[in-house]
Amino acid sequence: MKQYDIVIIGGGPAGFTTAVSARNTYTDKKIAIIRREEISMIPCGIPYILHSLEKIEDNILPDKPLNSKNIDIIIDEVTDRKDHTLVLKSGEKIKYEKLVIATGSRVLIPPIKGVEKENVFCIKKDKVYLESLKKRLESKEKIIIIGGGFIGLEVADELLKGGKKITIIERLDHLLPLAMDKEFGDMIQQGLKSAGADIVTNATVKEILGDDSATGVLLDNGKTISGDMVILSAGYIPNVELAEKTGLQYDDHYGIIVDEYLRTSEKDVFAVGDCSAKRNCYTGEYHRIMLASTAMAEGRLVGSNLYDIKVMRKFMGVLGSFSTKIADIAVGVSGITEKDAKALGVEYVVGTAETFDRHPGKLPDASKLYVKLIFSRYSHTLLGGEVRGGNSVGEIINILSVMIQKHMTDMEIDTLQIGTHPLLTSSPIAYPIINATADAILKWF
Amino acid sequence: MKQYDIVIIGGGPAGFTTAVSARNTYTDKKIAIIRREEISMIPCGIPYILHSLEKIEDNILPDKPLNSKNIDIIIDEVTDRKDHTLVLKSGEKIKYEKLVIATGSRVLIPPIKGVEKENVFCIKKDKVYLESLKKRLESKEKIIIIGGGFIGLEVADELLKGGKKITIIERLDHLLPLAMDKEFGDMIQQGLKSAGADIVTNATVKEILGDDSATGVLLDNGKTISGDMVILSAGYIPNVELAEKTGLQYDDHYGIIVDEYLRTSEKDVFAVGDCSAKRNCYTGEYHRIMLASTAMAEGRLVGSNLYDIKVMRKFMGVLGSFSTKIADIAVGVSGITEKDAKALGVEYVVGTAETFDRHPGKLPDASKLYVKLIFSRYSHTLLGGEVRGGNSVGEIINILSVMIQKHMTDMEIDTLQIGTHPLLTSSPIAYPIINATADAILKWF
Repeated sequence: MKQYDIVIIGGGPAGFTTAVSARNTYTDKKIAIIRREEISMIPCGIPYILHSLEKIEDNILPDKPLNSKNIDIIIDEVTDRKDHTLVLKSGEKIKYEKLVIATGSRVLIPPIKGVEKENVFCIKKDKVYLESLKKRLESKEKIIIIGGGFIGLEVADELLKGGKKITIIERLDHLLPLAMDKEFGDMIQQGLKSAGADIVTNATVKEILGDDSATGVLLDNGKTISGDMVILSAGYIPNVELAEKTGLQYDDHYGIIVDEYLRTSEKDVFAVGDCSAKRNCYTGEYHRIMLASTAMAEGRLVGSNLYDIKVMRKFMGVLGSFSTKIADIAVGVSGITEKDAKALGVEYVVGTAETFDRHPGKLPDASKLYVKLIFSRYSHTLLGGEVRGGNSVGEIINILSVMIQKHMTDMEIDTLQIGTHPLLTSSPIAYPIINATADAILKWF
Repeated sequence: MKQYDIVIIGGGPAGFTTAVSARNTYTDKKIAIIRREEISMIPCGIPYILHSLEKIEDNILPDKPLNSKNIDIIIDEVTDRKDHTLVLKSGEKIKYEKLVIATGSRVLIPPIKGVEKENVFCIKKDKVYLESLKKRLESKEKIIIIGGGFIGLEVADELLKGGKKITIIERLDHLLPLAMDKEFGDMIQQGLKSAGADIVTNATVKEILGDDSATGVLLDNGKTISGDMVILSAGYIPNVELAEKTGLQYDDHYGIIVDEYLRTSEKDVFAVGDCSAKRNCYTGEYHRIMLASTAMAEGRLVGSNLYDIKVMRKFMGVLGSFSTKIADIAVGVSGITEKDAKALGVEYVVGTAETFDRHPGKLPDASKLYVKLIFSRYSHTLLGGEVRGGNSVGEIINILSVMIQKHMTDMEIDTLQIGTHPLLTSSPIAYPIINATADAILKWF
């Protein structure tokens, strides 16, 4: 029987980061990662294997940083766990002192009639499966994508760039409905339409048509849409099997129950990343959101705190910061949207600003940048922000993330010192985070 | 005699922002800006009129936002001031209740023999002068730039793109010597060399050679460099004439003396932007740094606080956040550099990280991103950061700006939630601000 001090189950970003953080903190401990896959994929890079990346091998999470930090990688599957001992599929047993479950999430197959037909795919985080998807796409022309969330749209955008005919079906009233406010979803919809996509919102797929192989879909409004391939993109669900099997507290929908320090219901067992249940940072309620960057923050915290609490958790719950680029429009969000504020019953003030991301705006690569901020009406703290623009959106979202996590108020942001440059940012007089803040201030002033 | 409640002298970014902020706060007051120029330039955009922008008119600070906010613009010059009354060059007099001096800075002409020769120019913030510079450049091939600070290098980069032969002479041991650490200056130097520039460091110009017209320069080491035009870029000095003439406290080198709320030595008179003396935010000592974005922060504060203190100043002194892009390399800094830390006697820990600004790094437009952070050794707060990379550097600097202004510690940054996306940012596992922080933590851990 092998023996380790720290064992991490799962080789995705959450497991990876936990291992590195544990090694940095506990330099003498014996650490192993157990994962099923020979090769680990970069999850958020998966859509880009369809066109932008030359080959699937370009989207690999490298083992080198783990090797160089003396972290063992065991390719196997954990089937059971008892008395600080893991049982592997191979029959091997591994003893641990501290265990971190980072088993991630798996694709959710919606209960639609016909999902088992040939040419119906989903976006699994599995290299072999993705290879077969990519191969199949080669001979297909007209692709139907079910689900207008960010993975579905990123896949759509890649396939459009690859010359496919695309139809996107979203059951809610706009694209990116869970992530962003309607005006942002509509901007993306406009961009995808201009790129040639057909988009159907407010429609549910009742059935995938065809004999053995999909030939189209039937909508709840009675319309049919033809296509020679269907891609399901209805979200992901946490992998909780190991928790279920070994008596840890968990919730089917949200994941393995953990406390503020990501400790499960059993001593010496932690859970991080998509498989662990998240709480909303505003309400403290459970909340299903899966982001590699949240997993990272958790992994870094857990890696430091396995044997004792070295690093205090300063911020409870999931902020939800993400960005994407679809149809050459970058959008991003951090914290709550206006829709969220309404749903949560938060009293808020909205501030908006639009300008260019270069100054003067006549510079050759300038794009329009639009910022919408949500402030607490009475606390005056920044609660959330949404941004649309060029590539700088990715880091602008992180400026907002820091501001929100530090509970900055409108007046603090209004008098903040920021750096600007003609070729890299908006003008100082029009800097949109500050001007949207000033706009919000004017509304309550 | 005209009468205003609020008068702002100077139509640059500082004056502009003060006026808008004052209007937002004091909706009923009569506000005027008095400026000398018919047309106001965007100061930081000036280098880009030389190549990237089609025409000088593309680099204009627009009057429309002022007009739409009912702010009068008076094109004239203030020659004297007494008893809440300004005397203008035209002979007109204007009464004010509150006065804001935002007269900016002017170019510093170094005391070099021969600066008065023909074909010796500098980078003035004056449209007519810049038109003559641009016209003259048309017939010139070999340009000598004296001064390797960011304006000099931005001008050099533009002229290189326009096909000119360029020599840059810097008296200190690397480019951008006052702004960044040597390794960053050296990266820019390498980039400019690859683009064809000749660069001489550790050399002072003793004399500009030629009869009436410049034909080259003589260095202190005895060498001569030939050229048919010389551009001086030795910095700017605050415009303090009005303070001198009207009895306000001022310092020739640093500018008009102001307190924490930008109040001068006389009641009802404020000074903002390049003309007002700045204090270093770490030491509280006077510090000559001129940035539009600092002026903005001051202008927004003063505009809100002219009649009473509505907005508390939370952060004292100048942070110094800026970015630029030279030879297709973007660099930026916020807060102190390692060199500054040494000079100030600050005990510090450095953390660095390098990765790509996309993930996976095989994505077509990925650039290498390098981050260097300076933490206080015992307080563990972030004091400064320098970045080199692609266009995202402009906003990454602002993430650092917020972190520094909010006194974030290494452990807070280590467990921060940030958003990442393949097409827009570094990978979550390699996010360089966080990984450079982890690197610093390891050094004291």
